[in-house]
Amino acid sequence: MIIMNSEATNEEIANVVSEIKKYGLKADVSRGAYRTVIGLVGDESKIPFSNFAALPGVKEAMPIETPYKLISREYARMTEVEIGNRVIKVGDVEIGGNEPVFIAGPCAIESKEQLFKIAQGVKKAGAHILRGGIFKPRTSVHSFQGLGANGTEEASEALSWLREAGDRFELPVVTEIRGESHVDLVAEYVDIIQIGARNMYDQDLITKVARKGKPILYKRHFGAGIEEFLSFAEYIVAENNRDIILCERGILPLGKGRNYTRYTLDLSAVPAMRKETYLPIIIDPSHAAGRRDLIFDLSCAGIAVGACGLIVEVHHNPGEALVDSQQQITPDELKEVISACRGIHKALGQYRRNRD
Amino acid sequence: MIIMNSEATNEEIANVVSEIKKYGLKADVSRGAYRTVIGLVGDESKIPFSNFAALPGVKEAMPIETPYKLISREYARMTEVEIGNRVIKVGDVEIGGNEPVFIAGPCAIESKEQLFKIAQGVKKAGAHILRGGIFKPRTSVHSFQGLGANGTEEASEALSWLREAGDRFELPVVTEIRGESHVDLVAEYVDIIQIGARNMYDQDLITKVARKGKPILYKRHFGAGIEEFLSFAEYIVAENNRDIILCERGILPLGKGRNYTRYTLDLSAVPAMRKETYLPIIIDPSHAAGRRDLIFDLSCAGIAVGACGLIVEVHHNPGEALVDSQQQITPDELKEVISACRGIHKALGQYRRNRD
Amino acid sequence: MIIMNSEATNEEIANVVSEIKKYGLKADVSRGAYRTVIGLVGDESKIPFSNFAALPGVKEAMPIETPYKLISREYARMTEVEIGNRVIKVGDVEIGGNEPVFIAGPCAIESKEQLFKIAQGVKKAGAHILRGGIFKPRTSVHSFQGLGANGTEEASEALSWLREAGDRFELPVVTEIRGESHVDLVAEYVDIIQIGARNMYDQDLITKVARKGKPILYKRHFGAGIEEFLSFAEYIVAENNRDIILCERGILPLGKGRNYTRYTLDLSAVPAMRKETYLPIIIDPSHAAGRRDLIFDLSCAGIAVGACGLIVEVHHNPGEALVDSQQQITPDELKEVISACRGIHKALGQYRRNRD
Amino acid sequence: MIIMNSEATNEEIANVVSEIKKYGLKADVSRGAYRTVIGLVGDESKIPFSNFAALPGVKEAMPIETPYKLISREYARMTEVEIGNRVIKVGDVEIGGNEPVFIAGPCAIESKEQLFKIAQGVKKAGAHILRGGIFKPRTSVHSFQGLGANGTEEASEALSWLREAGDRFELPVVTEIRGESHVDLVAEYVDIIQIGARNMYDQDLITKVARKGKPILYKRHFGAGIEEFLSFAEYIVAENNRDIILCERGILPLGKGRNYTRYTLDLSAVPAMRKETYLPIIIDPSHAAGRRDLIFDLSCAGIAVGACGLIVEVHHNPGEALVDSQQQITPDELKEVISACRGIHKALGQYRRNRD
Repeated sequence: MIIMNSEATNEEIANVVSEIKKYGLKADVSRGAYRTVIGLVGDESKIPFSNFAALPGVKEAMPIETPYKLISREYARMTEVEIGNRVIKVGDVEIGGNEPVFIAGPCAIESKEQLFKIAQGVKKAGAHILRGGIFKPRTSVHSFQGLGANGTEEASEALSWLREAGDRFELPVVTEIRGESHVDLVAEYVDIIQIGARNMYDQDLITKVARKGKPILYKRHFGAGIEEFLSFAEYIVAENNRDIILCERGILPLGKGRNYTRYTLDLSAVPAMRKETYLPIIIDPSHAAGRRDLIFDLSCAGIAVGACGLIVEVHHNPGEALVDSQQQITPDELKEVISACRGIHKALGQYRRNRD
Repeated sequence: MIIMNSEATNEEIANVVSEIKKYGLKADVSRGAYRTVIGLVGDESKIPFSNFAALPGVKEAMPIETPYKLISREYARMTEVEIGNRVIKVGDVEIGGNEPVFIAGPCAIESKEQLFKIAQGVKKAGAHILRGGIFKPRTSVHSFQGLGANGTEEASEALSWLREAGDRFELPVVTEIRGESHVDLVAEYVDIIQIGARNMYDQDLITKVARKGKPILYKRHFGAGIEEFLSFAEYIVAENNRDIILCERGILPLGKGRNYTRYTLDLSAVPAMRKETYLPIIIDPSHAAGRRDLIFDLSCAGIAVGACGLIVEVHHNPGEALVDSQQQITPDELKEVISACRGIHKALGQYRRNRD
Repeated sequence: MIIMNSEATNEEIANVVSEIKKYGLKADVSRGAYRTVIGLVGDESKIPFSNFAALPGVKEAMPIETPYKLISREYARMTEVEIGNRVIKVGDVEIGGNEPVFIAGPCAIESKEQLFKIAQGVKKAGAHILRGGIFKPRTSVHSFQGLGANGTEEASEALSWLREAGDRFELPVVTEIRGESHVDLVAEYVDIIQIGARNMYDQDLITKVARKGKPILYKRHFGAGIEEFLSFAEYIVAENNRDIILCERGILPLGKGRNYTRYTLDLSAVPAMRKETYLPIIIDPSHAAGRRDLIFDLSCAGIAVGACGLIVEVHHNPGEALVDSQQQITPDELKEVISACRGIHKALGQYRRNRD
Repeated sequence: MIIMNSEATNEEIANVVSEIKKYGLKADVSRGAYRTVIGLVGDESKIPFSNFAALPGVKEAMPIETPYKLISREYARMTEVEIGNRVIKVGDVEIGGNEPVFIAGPCAIESKEQLFKIAQGVKKAGAHILRGGIFKPRTSVHSFQGLGANGTEEASEALSWLREAGDRFELPVVTEIRGESHVDLVAEYVDIIQIGARNMYDQDLITKVARKGKPILYKRHFGAGIEEFLSFAEYIVAENNRDIILCERGILPLGKGRNYTRYTLDLSAVPAMRKETYLPIIIDPSHAAGRRDLIFDLSCAGIAVGACGLIVEVHHNPGEALVDSQQQITPDELKEVISACRGIHKALGQYRRNRD
């Protein structure tokens, strides 16, 4: 990080930026009211900080030791880039704003009819954003991989249904991307691109998606520590895209004996991450629980712990869903979840305001 | 399990019980309105079930495969022993009843004055039960082990302070026990005996404590699966003591990089265990988080997820506490926690009633 | 899986294959001496097995429940495709054959000179295959990402050095691939393509690499169970590529307190996987340990537990390496490792022969 | 730690010791050739080190930050107490000496006849020490708990069989202890007392057993980090008992899907711990694997990684064992294991000598 003198000229700043580029790094210039800070994006070990400290207009030049900085509250405060929490606007919906946001829809899109039926249901239940899977990451090659697995044509068709359903029911839409070759296609149709837990570490994919400039719903891998998760999210900001919705969806279960939930929803990660970063955080109770009868309780806990929204799998007839049928809830159940979450959010309003 | 005919006589029942004893097992007789069920406590593999099926008055005789049964809702319904949730009464306090219960106090008792000051504080803040550690399990032999480590005399003195503080402020009291040799002593002074996470697997200690007949606050080990936890709780019921308060206090953190919380509070274990057992479940946000600034959020999440209470470490001046100073909150902060939790409990009331 | 009658005609087989394709699946036809078995590759839930059982020439038609089958010993025996262990030939080197195979080289290629110096060293030490990283997966965007990060030109140059070094010292070469866009480029230069731990779940990348038909060194993710690992390896076989070298490189460390190794090398996974699959398995002690002074012991343990080779990071001057300097050993240390491993392999020879 | 001047008198040393006692700590005095070091055992936070530095004869007085020190190589070197590896003699057997040591016997003693048959078998196979369980820690209260569960009389009888078998076949004997109330009884009969994985954290039990002065076979809990394990072992040395055999027996398995081993044998913990402590380390492949067919491979790996012995469950007829039948091997299989392990030990001899 390079901090300029308060009277540093534009030329001096430009000079520092051009010096940084010589070393193969990018510069992230933040002009605050009182000073300008230049962040380094890339391999800092190449930079001779003492030489930089001697350049005209430079007040201080020093490496930052943490694996992430651009997404941190600390750096944001220092550079005055983000003060308070980042609010991401998608259409009329604000993620990270004053009200909890509910993303809902089928695990996998199976047909246009199925999608529209569910989209209508979740809209009526009070959801704000429609989800629907087209490229499904699956453990077994012998399981249904989503309609996107059948080639570009079917993928495009399914994407167009999603777009259409979103438009019809006035719901921005989100779908998961699994491979680099679909980035352009998916970005054409959706408002938010999801990078799923299994691709959390896939830095080439992350970078490619980040460059599209669209909001990204970024899920924590089930074996990833919080520091790793935030460090990989930094790959997105490094492409100048700060519209990141972090999502906790459960970590590996621990201990002998049978598992009562598919994963362990790490709810304490929500407030822990909120102390670190200004990015909005949501939770996914469906994949964490892997069973319908815990969705209500986990959703309530998610809002109570400070998440600013939920992503929930909903199906009008869960029993016949092709994927994850045992963890999807009905639109009516979603309505109850949303109503309960709003009650908690309201009950906590005064305490949260006092604490922020 | 042996199910008797509806018209089985007392003699027939007594005969089955005496047959069971011949094999070195104990019998758990449950007389319901319509039938009598005799549970086997001990090593079932010794029992010739087909011989038992042939005894007079016996309808069915069969082994139960799960590692726990006496504490399960399923067995409780079958035997009509416990229908609904178990409510444990300690003085005027009901654990597992209609209102959330708050247990609070210092991690370790340091002096009579410190204890009384904190007891007064937590009472005013709205807590129901007073906690205070005398025998502290510690990772390092070179750390403070609690006043109980200095011999029976000091242990008794600290216990008498706890008793006195409880009486003065009308708060039932709980303390942790670490070794078999202190069971009699501790049982003399306290209302609830705590078996801590590190002793969860210590079946000899569990059995000895269970026999005292007092309510037990039983904490899950940080490496234990839910099935293991419930199976070891069964050792308590096997001694005919059903006054067990299960407590989730965090499991091992997972993933590379620095840990942002000391343990991972497994909140989804609460509703998962509630489906399995009729016993009340509370959470301990203090040991899970290991940091003061997450206690509020985790407490709210605990109540929202369905816990029927909290155990929280409180100190009038956390900075000077001898143990766990970084995770204790003040009485004023406790008051805010309790108030927020009550708000959530109230907001969720109608939904919970509909679902039970 | 569809088992044909022993007298089934080619036409009948072709008919079944074409029926399978109608459902969007691929067919894996294995003609054994006594019968022909047709495996289904893809989503089996779509297949009406009872209809298939009624087709001419079909003896049995049934789904297989495990998430992997094509790579399993059991299926291999049934279909007579692979009996015994698969041996993968790369040039003159046999992986999975009678002698342990040693893959060695720098973590990251830094310059042509550095690579050639190390290549010469590992050749002299007795290594069989040369490794060298060009695209480095890194947790922090602010760390060195390998020469491949600087664009196609530099990537090609580094790849050509690797090729040249391999040719000069008669060592087949392997490098890791991180993103789909480099598959064609990398395949041009190397003998074995590595898919690293962080990309283990990246099924689009796996599929694309598998189609190149080259041997794949496939590493287990540090949070993946064995079943998951084998299931994702199945994505490679589903592309008709059976030249897979499975690699265990350490799983997440567990437990409180400081970690003494970077990961926990799961050595028992080696014999456990050998019972399941005919594929060769190697271990990577370097990334697992993360410290130089344990490489010798872990290498010995790897060969003793039944691995058929090692992949080890070697640098002529570990202290100055740009990546992972603390875990690389010198060529002289490698020589000692290889010699000790050969001693163990020899000492165990008679026992292994008796048991196979 | 307090370091005395080289010319410090006995009186000065005694004075420091008595000062230490005033603060409720114990003193561990090590007189080396050139200086005397006094270790503090207990809560160091109470000690005013600057005051101690001013006492006559004191050269330096300072706290030690690590949670363990008495068992560390570093402290041992400083105090000259233990240089090199500790060798524990039990009868004619040396644990931690030049040859690997094999402890074998039934999981649980079922009858005198069974025990004698197995004892004879393991002796013939080349084992050095006989194990046999009398108090079995079990997850389910409904499983067989060992003969010790039936009361003191049966426990004494089983212990006397073990003693007798040991005497008859010239094998020192070891059994596990589970509760404080059996310490005196067990110590009367056996040569080595085992504290099992589930009691690793039970500091009251540890202290009581340590005071008996007998060698202790101390197993790592399956959820314990290495630092925790060594820290709890320090409780034994704090009672002036350095005859501790550390045992790695597997940690919690990780990852989704079915487990192929019961636990994950953490073999890298062996060399990692050897760098930290002078205590001998053995491994238990039986409980780690939970399946017979991996015992041979894991045993070989254990010796290859640097363990100085094994503890293996053996039964003359594993299929009929009351506990853990699926993981016990026959005496013939044990013979093969021992022979292979000796081969590895020999093959590694020269390398180990060069490195020590």
